[in-house]
Amino acid sequence: MTKETALGAALKTAVQTMSKKKQTDMIADYIYNKYDVFKRFKPLALGIDQDLVTALPQFDPALIARVLANHCRRPRYLKALARGGKRFDLNNRFKGEVSAEEQAIAQQHPAVQQALAAQAERKAAKEKQAEQGSEAATATDVDVKDEAENKAADQE
Amino acid sequence: MTKETALGAALKTAVQTMSKKKQTDMIADYIYNKYDVFKRFKPLALGIDQDLVTALPQFDPALIARVLANHCRRPRYLKALARGGKRFDLNNRFKGEVSAEEQAIAQQHPAVQQALAAQAERKAAKEKQAEQGSEAATATDVDVKDEAENKAADQE
Repeated sequence: MTKETALGAALKTAVQTMSKKKQTDMIADYIYNKYDVFKRFKPLALGIDQDLVTALPQFDPALIARVLANHCRRPRYLKALARGGKRFDLNNRFKGEVSAEEQAIAQQHPAVQQALAAQAERKAAKEKQAEQGSEAATATDVDVKDEAENKAADQE
Repeated sequence: MTKETALGAALKTAVQTMSKKKQTDMIADYIYNKYDVFKRFKPLALGIDQDLVTALPQFDPALIARVLANHCRRPRYLKALARGGKRFDLNNRFKGEVSAEEQAIAQQHPAVQQALAAQAERKAAKEKQAEQGSEAATATDVDVKDEAENKAADQE
């Protein structure tokens, strides 16, 4: 348990008068801005739920768990699990890794299959366009497109 | 590494002349018959892949991994993860547990959502039937129906 200050207690009371939807939005805003591991959809360390509860004492642990569950089922997160490898904690340090089972389930997940199919289609279309001689695109253009693709895939 | 006997080596050579499909079928037959944890689709201990490689030295580890991946993406296995709780090793002993992340992903998996919706529908239909006075079903009938439902849900 964190030691509660009078200010902390007042903040907690104020937060808890808001709707649950508003509170989960606040939690999501906070973690996507503050933590690289969320911003970049890296595989999360086991126990990161407890670390977040400690880091955000003003919020209801049940709502923090809800935000985490929403994060974990986003296609972009599932794609990260499908790639496998190391997991990361709130400080962006290695902690554990994605298991073979987690990787297998993520690879076969319909959202990941869809995202990969859409990605392959866009790649084929881009290659076809390149073949047809429109080689004016600069490296910067391509970077911007990749970014847009990530966003599109993530919204599926 | 397991110490190889002449008989073991001969068996291994014989097995490896078969098609990969035939070999994975043999592995699947073997593990579903021999291990309760597979037969009953309980959450699998981490590292069970290595335990299986040791237990089945005549088979290619890559094919064992393929059978495991197939098992893990079956709706009935995903449903078990969605329930959460303990994981089990080949000897049916507790070893680790399903993480909050794994549970959240399984709960939101389309195959699990579909299976749960179908289950709720069947339950509603059954209750309606019971209300209409057809109370002749014995406990045995209900058991048989549940078994059939599990199979149906598993084939989705």
